[in-house]
Amino acid sequence: MATVALLSDEAAPAESRAVFEAIRTARQTDYVNNFWRALAHDPALLRVTWERASEVMAPGALDPLVKELVYLAVSTANGCAYCVHSHTAAARAKGMTPEQHGELLAVIAMASQTNALATALGVPVDERFQEGP
Amino acid sequence: MATVALLSDEAAPAESRAVFEAIRTARQTDYVNNFWRALAHDPALLRVTWERASEVMAPGALDPLVKELVYLAVSTANGCAYCVHSHTAAARAKGMTPEQHGELLAVIAMASQTNALATALGVPVDERFQEGP
Amino acid sequence: MATVALLSDEAAPAESRAVFEAIRTARQTDYVNNFWRALAHDPALLRVTWERASEVMAPGALDPLVKELVYLAVSTANGCAYCVHSHTAAARAKGMTPEQHGELLAVIAMASQTNALATALGVPVDERFQEGP
Amino acid sequence: MATVALLSDEAAPAESRAVFEAIRTARQTDYVNNFWRALAHDPALLRVTWERASEVMAPGALDPLVKELVYLAVSTANGCAYCVHSHTAAARAKGMTPEQHGELLAVIAMASQTNALATALGVPVDERFQEGP
Amino acid sequence: MATVALLSDEAAPAESRAVFEAIRTARQTDYVNNFWRALAHDPALLRVTWERASEVMAPGALDPLVKELVYLAVSTANGCAYCVHSHTAAARAKGMTPEQHGELLAVIAMASQTNALATALGVPVDERFQEGP
Amino acid sequence: MATVALLSDEAAPAESRAVFEAIRTARQTDYVNNFWRALAHDPALLRVTWERASEVMAPGALDPLVKELVYLAVSTANGCAYCVHSHTAAARAKGMTPEQHGELLAVIAMASQTNALATALGVPVDERFQEGP
Repeated sequence: MATVALLSDEAAPAESRAVFEAIRTARQTDYVNNFWRALAHDPALLRVTWERASEVMAPGALDPLVKELVYLAVSTANGCAYCVHSHTAAARAKGMTPEQHGELLAVIAMASQTNALATALGVPVDERFQEGP
Repeated sequence: MATVALLSDEAAPAESRAVFEAIRTARQTDYVNNFWRALAHDPALLRVTWERASEVMAPGALDPLVKELVYLAVSTANGCAYCVHSHTAAARAKGMTPEQHGELLAVIAMASQTNALATALGVPVDERFQEGP
Repeated sequence: MATVALLSDEAAPAESRAVFEAIRTARQTDYVNNFWRALAHDPALLRVTWERASEVMAPGALDPLVKELVYLAVSTANGCAYCVHSHTAAARAKGMTPEQHGELLAVIAMASQTNALATALGVPVDERFQEGP
Repeated sequence: MATVALLSDEAAPAESRAVFEAIRTARQTDYVNNFWRALAHDPALLRVTWERASEVMAPGALDPLVKELVYLAVSTANGCAYCVHSHTAAARAKGMTPEQHGELLAVIAMASQTNALATALGVPVDERFQEGP
Repeated sequence: MATVALLSDEAAPAESRAVFEAIRTARQTDYVNNFWRALAHDPALLRVTWERASEVMAPGALDPLVKELVYLAVSTANGCAYCVHSHTAAARAKGMTPEQHGELLAVIAMASQTNALATALGVPVDERFQEGP
Repeated sequence: MATVALLSDEAAPAESRAVFEAIRTARQTDYVNNFWRALAHDPALLRVTWERASEVMAPGALDPLVKELVYLAVSTANGCAYCVHSHTAAARAKGMTPEQHGELLAVIAMASQTNALATALGVPVDERFQEGP
C-alpha cells in the first residue's frame, strides 16, 4: 500500500539493518515498525531521522509524555494518519491515561476551531504579544 | 486590518460587553485582546467560544501549561499567526521557560518532518497500532 | 483501524448511550455512525460535540444544505477523509443534486488553486478589503 | 511586501492589461485588486486563472453567494489571509448579512474541530458512506 | 470507498468517454486511473482538469520530471494520499531514480520543519526578500 | 513582530554567533536573515537546523535549483509566508528565471486543485500505484 516496499531485515541494506538494531536496543523490543522499514531504502535519511528523533524525544525540560502529546497534536493538525496511530500508541506506552487522552482531544478540537476563527476574522496580532527586535 | 472591525467596549453589543467582563474577571486584567473584540459582532458565538475555552483549558488530568503547549503546537501546524502569538504569550504567563520553549519547537519541527515523510511514503498503519472494534 | 475501539451500545458508558439515543431521535434512524462511537469513550466530549453540532447546523440565516456544503468544503481543505465521506452523505440526504456536487467541487478546486497562488506570490491585502478598528 | 512587484497598468505587459480591462468590464469598477496585479507577470497564467474563475463563480446549480461562502470557507481552512480578506469583501458585495457571516464562522469552526477529532481518533469510514465501484 | 462511484467506460457519459480516449492517446496506455473515473460524473470538470493538467505539465522552462517532483512535494504537504501515490508512480515513469527520490524526501522533510519553526517563531519577512510595488 | 526577539550579533549567545559566522562564510555575505536570528535563542537547535539544511540543499542527485523549487512549493502548500519569501529570493539567487517562476506557480496551482478534488472524491489508490511489502 506504500509508495515504496517496506523492507524486511533481509531486504534492507546493511547500514539500514544497523539502524534497525539501534531501534531494537533503544526500545527493548524486536518489533521495527513500518515507518522505519519504508525509510530504509535511504540509509542516510533513516539514520539521521532516527538519531534526531531520539535526541528530541529524550527527557529534558519537558518530560517524555508531554513531548508525545505535542507530537500527537501536531500529527493530528497535519492530518498524518500513520503518525496519529503510532504516536497514540507511543503516548499510551509512556503512560497516557484515557482521561488525559480525552483532555488532549478537547484541547486539539478547541485550538482547531479558534485557529479557524482567528484566520477567518483576520485578527491582527496585539502589540503586547509581539517581541521587540 | 481584520475582515471585521475590532469592537471597543462602547461599540460592542451589551451581551458581548458582558463576556468582556467575564474575560476581565477570569484573567484579572483590564485588557481584552483582539480575538474577542473581533468575535464580539456575534455575541452568541463569542459567549460559547469563551465558555468552552475556559472549560477545556482548566486544570484536569493535564495541567494548564501542558494544555497551552499543545494549543501552541496545533496553532503552529495550522499556520495561525494570531494564535501562535497569543498562545506563546499565554504559555509564558503560565510559566513556560526558554528551555521548554526550545524543546517544544524541536518536537514540533521533528513531528512536522516525520509527518511529511510518512505521508510521502504512504506508510500503512501497523496492525498493532490499531484498536479492534 | 481507529486509535480507540468503536463502542457498541453495550460497551458504551451510560451517559454516552444517552447521547446515542439523542442522535437516533434527532435523525430518526437507528444507525449511529462511527464518529460518535469513537468519541463515546469520553461522554462529556461526546455530549458537547453533539449538542454544539446540532445548534450550529440548525436552520438559521443560512439554510441547512448550504451549511452542509460549507462543512464539506472545510473538511476537504483540512484533508479529513472521514468527514468528507460523512458530510457528502449528509449533503445528499439534505438534497444536494449531482449538478450541485459538481459545482461545489469546481469552487473548491478554484479556491485551492488561487489560495496557493496568493500565498506563493505573498500578495498584500488591499486596503479596501480591510476593516478599520 | 509581495514576492513579485505588483504591476501597474503601465508596467504590465499588453496581454495582461487586456485581462485587467476584462476584469474592469465584468466587475463594473476601475479597481483591479492586488492578486491580479501580482499574477500579471505571467499573462497566460493571469488569463487562464481569471477566465476559469469567472466560469466557476457564475450562477448555476448553486447561487453566486453560496459559491462565495464556500470559497471563503476553503480559504480559511487553507490559511490564505489574502483570500480570506478578498472573499469576505466579495461575499458582502453579493449580499452576505452579518447574521450569515456569523453562522458561516460557526460552521467553519464546528467543521474544523470535528475534522481534528475524526483524524485524531482515526475513525474508519462507515460502509454506508462509501459508494460502490 | 470513494464518495462517488468510479465510472467504467460503459457507465461514463459519452463526453467523459471522449476524455478517457484523450487520456489513453496521450499516455499510450489503455489504463485510465481512478481519479479520472471519479471525475467522470461531471464531463465539463473532467475535461477542463485534464486539459489544463496536460498544458501545465508539458515541457517548458522546467522539464517534466522537475514538474512531477514539485507536484509530488505539494501533494505531500497537502496530505493527499491518492496524489502522493499517483505522482510517485508518474515521477518514476519520467525517470526519477531512488537517489533522487531520497533527496526529494529529504528536502520535503527539511522544508516541513523550517516552515513549522518560522511559523512558531512568527519571524517577520526581511526587507530584502520583499519586492517593491 | 516575532514571538521572540531577533538577536543581534551582540545579543546572541557565543555558540549562536559561531553559527552566524558559519552562515556568513557559506553564503559569502555579511547578512544573516531573521530566521536564524530568531532561532539563536537556542544554540543547539540553531546549529542542527543550519547544518542539516546545508547537507540537504547541497548538490547531489538533484541540482540545487530544483531543490529550491521543491522547498518553495512545500512552503507554499504549508502556508509559511516567511519561507515563501526567503526561498523565492534563494531560488532567484540560484538562477530561477521569470519563466521558470511562472511555470512553478502553475504546477503548484494545478497540484493544489487536483489534491482537493481527489480528497473531495475520496478516490481509492489504484493497485498499480502501490508497492508490495
